[in-house]
Amino acid sequence: MLNILLSGVGGAMGHMLQTIIGEDPDCQIVAGFDINTDQDTPFPVYSDLSQCAEKADVIIDFSHYKAFDSIFGYARDTRTPIVIATTGLSEANLADIEAGSKEFPVFRTANMSLGINLLAKALRDMAGALEDGFDIEIIEKHHNKKADAPSGTALLLADAVNDGLENKKDYTFGRHGRDCKRKPLELGIHAVRGGTIPGEHTVLFAGNDELIEIRHTALSKKVFASGAVTAAKYLVDQAPGLFNMEMLIDN
Amino acid sequence: MLNILLSGVGGAMGHMLQTIIGEDPDCQIVAGFDINTDQDTPFPVYSDLSQCAEKADVIIDFSHYKAFDSIFGYARDTRTPIVIATTGLSEANLADIEAGSKEFPVFRTANMSLGINLLAKALRDMAGALEDGFDIEIIEKHHNKKADAPSGTALLLADAVNDGLENKKDYTFGRHGRDCKRKPLELGIHAVRGGTIPGEHTVLFAGNDELIEIRHTALSKKVFASGAVTAAKYLVDQAPGLFNMEMLIDN
Amino acid sequence: MLNILLSGVGGAMGHMLQTIIGEDPDCQIVAGFDINTDQDTPFPVYSDLSQCAEKADVIIDFSHYKAFDSIFGYARDTRTPIVIATTGLSEANLADIEAGSKEFPVFRTANMSLGINLLAKALRDMAGALEDGFDIEIIEKHHNKKADAPSGTALLLADAVNDGLENKKDYTFGRHGRDCKRKPLELGIHAVRGGTIPGEHTVLFAGNDELIEIRHTALSKKVFASGAVTAAKYLVDQAPGLFNMEMLIDN
Amino acid sequence: MLNILLSGVGGAMGHMLQTIIGEDPDCQIVAGFDINTDQDTPFPVYSDLSQCAEKADVIIDFSHYKAFDSIFGYARDTRTPIVIATTGLSEANLADIEAGSKEFPVFRTANMSLGINLLAKALRDMAGALEDGFDIEIIEKHHNKKADAPSGTALLLADAVNDGLENKKDYTFGRHGRDCKRKPLELGIHAVRGGTIPGEHTVLFAGNDELIEIRHTALSKKVFASGAVTAAKYLVDQAPGLFNMEMLIDN
Repeated sequence: MLNILLSGVGGAMGHMLQTIIGEDPDCQIVAGFDINTDQDTPFPVYSDLSQCAEKADVIIDFSHYKAFDSIFGYARDTRTPIVIATTGLSEANLADIEAGSKEFPVFRTANMSLGINLLAKALRDMAGALEDGFDIEIIEKHHNKKADAPSGTALLLADAVNDGLENKKDYTFGRHGRDCKRKPLELGIHAVRGGTIPGEHTVLFAGNDELIEIRHTALSKKVFASGAVTAAKYLVDQAPGLFNMEMLIDN
Repeated sequence: MLNILLSGVGGAMGHMLQTIIGEDPDCQIVAGFDINTDQDTPFPVYSDLSQCAEKADVIIDFSHYKAFDSIFGYARDTRTPIVIATTGLSEANLADIEAGSKEFPVFRTANMSLGINLLAKALRDMAGALEDGFDIEIIEKHHNKKADAPSGTALLLADAVNDGLENKKDYTFGRHGRDCKRKPLELGIHAVRGGTIPGEHTVLFAGNDELIEIRHTALSKKVFASGAVTAAKYLVDQAPGLFNMEMLIDN
Repeated sequence: MLNILLSGVGGAMGHMLQTIIGEDPDCQIVAGFDINTDQDTPFPVYSDLSQCAEKADVIIDFSHYKAFDSIFGYARDTRTPIVIATTGLSEANLADIEAGSKEFPVFRTANMSLGINLLAKALRDMAGALEDGFDIEIIEKHHNKKADAPSGTALLLADAVNDGLENKKDYTFGRHGRDCKRKPLELGIHAVRGGTIPGEHTVLFAGNDELIEIRHTALSKKVFASGAVTAAKYLVDQAPGLFNMEMLIDN
Repeated sequence: MLNILLSGVGGAMGHMLQTIIGEDPDCQIVAGFDINTDQDTPFPVYSDLSQCAEKADVIIDFSHYKAFDSIFGYARDTRTPIVIATTGLSEANLADIEAGSKEFPVFRTANMSLGINLLAKALRDMAGALEDGFDIEIIEKHHNKKADAPSGTALLLADAVNDGLENKKDYTFGRHGRDCKRKPLELGIHAVRGGTIPGEHTVLFAGNDELIEIRHTALSKKVFASGAVTAAKYLVDQAPGLFNMEMLIDN
């Protein structure tokens, strides 16, 4: 039985993880971390982890970048493997992850789905052949409660494209004006927001009278929750290091 | 035989208009206006219209907002009906059009296609029923040589939506940051640029677990050139006034 | 408190309705109808409604066309208003509905969402203006467990288009061969099936170098369950008659 | 200077090839083959190639499967390299191509664009990872004058997917009925027809709450004509053999 500490209990992803883990006979949530401790859950929820008496095998973090220092500090102090799905992290956060992963196992991905990570791989392979003559833009769509823009997944895909190119692109975020003609090295990333959209990402290659579009659509948050649990099960068997979804897929 | 003065000879739309008008037995181009007068055309091209000796029945203007004062001034001085398809016009330009149209017939539309103008009408009708519970965003795609963003057509569609709403939306152009959650009255307009895309516009209504998308795709610039010629034929029979595509369709 | 008899307890829509009704303080399920009576529900489930002792104010039917005669017969015998969302009904079923609705209130729609019914209305209005020069096709996508093709909703939208046309189209379902050129009066309806897709419908108008697409996407089955409950609340206040979603929207 | 014999002069692709070749200083059309010899062209057009006195370096065939035996027989008799872009060929035609290519260079592809052939490659690589848990369907859209369905390109993409799978799929072409639930090994191919659409192909992988779509859109026939000329230039330098677009790209 895998004992999980869930960081981000009250959000939409927190609820989805409770459902998914509740249906899985091989794991259970032993404690939660959230600024709001007044949650209707069968496990205790802490806003201050120094009070947490339960011992978890692994942490799943789907919270907010503002809570990152607390949860990551706790993981480091207790040497607990941690799966990080929170986006909007700062450069300082990323440096902490890099350093911490030398001491205990850390899994970080901007997107927990199989599909996105397969597409990232395909984009890295394809981009080179399309470097001459194709312009590249990314359009992502999410629900109206998402705080950061663009999505971490859009950046993950843009980085995968850039990995495959000789001349790296510069990201740009929206266009407005009478004289803002596209520059060849621009890679526009457009963050559409509305309703309850779980997440859609499209990478567009626009060439001379031909277009290629690579699109991923999540139909529910379930796909991300399942991916996080899969990652947690994978992570507890690893030595210290920094892991991601492509490593899990290739495993 | 309808005699046409073509403003904007050397651009992609100028070439398409020459083809379309060349295939139409009922009209011909008698003169052109362009900053570059060295064009390979069977009609004279002027950069200074005071030198234009030819008499046109109607002007078709598909040039650049910087050339607008010259061509519109010429139309007003000569009382020549003018079809304006140039986008990126300023508030002052629009005031001139308003004033001029009291003296001679002026046709202005941000988009010359039948489809876009029908959709504008449908959006005006539908928007009210979707006002509660749906967020609205517009995504437009154009070739990498387009100077202005968003397209005039995207604004035409956004205005049509707003016409149908009680609480008017504020247009926003791109999102970027860690804390830029969508506000209910935002209407995001996203300008994608790449390759040779003639023009695609999508209006997205994103509600509670349901999406409505209204999309128009131009497969070539021909559709805009044909629309401009249709507008020119319609305009020469009108009294002074300001005309648009919806008036032509309803005619 | 509205007492509901749920027809089709064990299917995906049956589960969704139990969730939605469970969260609604104004209604409750008092009994269920299903060929499989071994369901884990707080209300009794009958495979033979003659044994049903509970008295319902309204029936919601999301079952299978094979079960239609049983549930509709029960509604007629007990004069219980019935909301019918089952698709794949035969001509004989439709005649029974027509006859029965003279005696008690019947609500029937192929699609319970607000969006689809608004689009049907818009399509009826637009189709006439696009009759000359545009070909019309419908593409619908659903999960791999759906038995009937095309969806009832695709037919609802096709019928709405046809209502707006002078020359009615003939529906065709797939194309295959070396000489099967499209005929002008064809309206192709394409049923894509895969994964867990809740439902996507696109009406395509393809003209001379321009395309118009009208698309509805359901992100979950919740949207249909909510619509059915809204319909049930509306129906119990009506006199005998045949009601549909557009009547509810206009109400 | 590359001397080209154009097979299929009067069709839309024939006209586009004349334009593209006319703008290319390195090649010219020396003769044409078409059942209709009354064409307005600067080169002679034959319906019977035994009368053709001109000597071509290469044949480009964009005609109709009914004309295939004549043009391919002429290529074989004269040992002229031939680029075949005609679709709808029979098994017997394909056997002739196989045999003939042992004697002279033959290039055959169902699609002349760079993009489609890159996607075919990517699909072959990706399909295996998606074999478990994803259903696969293809939707293609073409103009209303296309005779065959589905397009040769749709079959090319379906075959590429199948190459990457362990359990091969069976192609199916449209669905209609009350009990036609999708079988796991089905791969539905849907041929949408309308207006002047140059060609759009989408491969859909539909999984458990996630979708992957790979789409190619041709904005004009120019992309196919350019590809055919590139293939012709490549082919004249080859020894006898059967060549295709992926071999050209990897070259």
